[in-house]
Amino acid sequence: MSVYDRDNIFAKILRGEVPSFKVHEDDHTLAFLDIMPRTLGHTLVIPKAPARNLLDAPSDALSRTILAVQRVAKAAKIAFAADGVTLLQFSEQASGQVVFHLHFHVLPRYDGIPLLPPQTNMESNETLVPRAAKLRAAIANLGV
Amino acid sequence: MSVYDRDNIFAKILRGEVPSFKVHEDDHTLAFLDIMPRTLGHTLVIPKAPARNLLDAPSDALSRTILAVQRVAKAAKIAFAADGVTLLQFSEQASGQVVFHLHFHVLPRYDGIPLLPPQTNMESNETLVPRAAKLRAAIANLGV
Repeated sequence: MSVYDRDNIFAKILRGEVPSFKVHEDDHTLAFLDIMPRTLGHTLVIPKAPARNLLDAPSDALSRTILAVQRVAKAAKIAFAADGVTLLQFSEQASGQVVFHLHFHVLPRYDGIPLLPPQTNMESNETLVPRAAKLRAAIANLGV
Repeated sequence: MSVYDRDNIFAKILRGEVPSFKVHEDDHTLAFLDIMPRTLGHTLVIPKAPARNLLDAPSDALSRTILAVQRVAKAAKIAFAADGVTLLQFSEQASGQVVFHLHFHVLPRYDGIPLLPPQTNMESNETLVPRAAKLRAAIANLGV
């Protein structure tokens, strides 16, 4: 069993050592825009608890994370007028996992538009700042 | 908002009107092999509660389903000696959803082997029966 590396980039984001385009935060989860979006509104949702991936995640962290995923998915569909949402989660390198802190990819989908391959283009701050604000507002508008 | 169609194929599986290669069942969730596997051990995990997809799933059903997904993923990795696991979930047609009852695809991954495209080949009963038995045993071996 591989162990949790507390110097992964998402651990650094959680500790505030690396900035992110946050769209949601509560006591147990954090959500922020992927800076190399595969689709308009591509967002990552992670637990604050250390977990390498789905295979070692504590039950309570996992439950809370999927509920945050659902909120982000609902809000992103509204904020970006998406037609659907794809959820992707990778565990271990063979599956495509690159950052070893559990994360769910929330991928808003638009009729007839395929996902870009992973890590195609780095998006600019000028684009991501208003996009994050838009999604943050949509999440807040969902209520509790 | 689209509604839940109680005549979808997974609703029929839940009612026992259509057979499936079950690997796990509890009061709230069911897991069974995909009959058109994209990878060795491709399994679907669904809530028993009616839900069209991630966007309308009740919180408790969603939490319980992701915990069942985790059990299936852990067990499948062991049963099939996989190197990793990919989780996929589609909401609405634009994302690739075909059956409109919430389901998570648990896809065991093997180093260097890509996923088959969706619905490439129908697997034979002779192959699926022992495969389901193997996964069922691995899930039981996880304990509670």
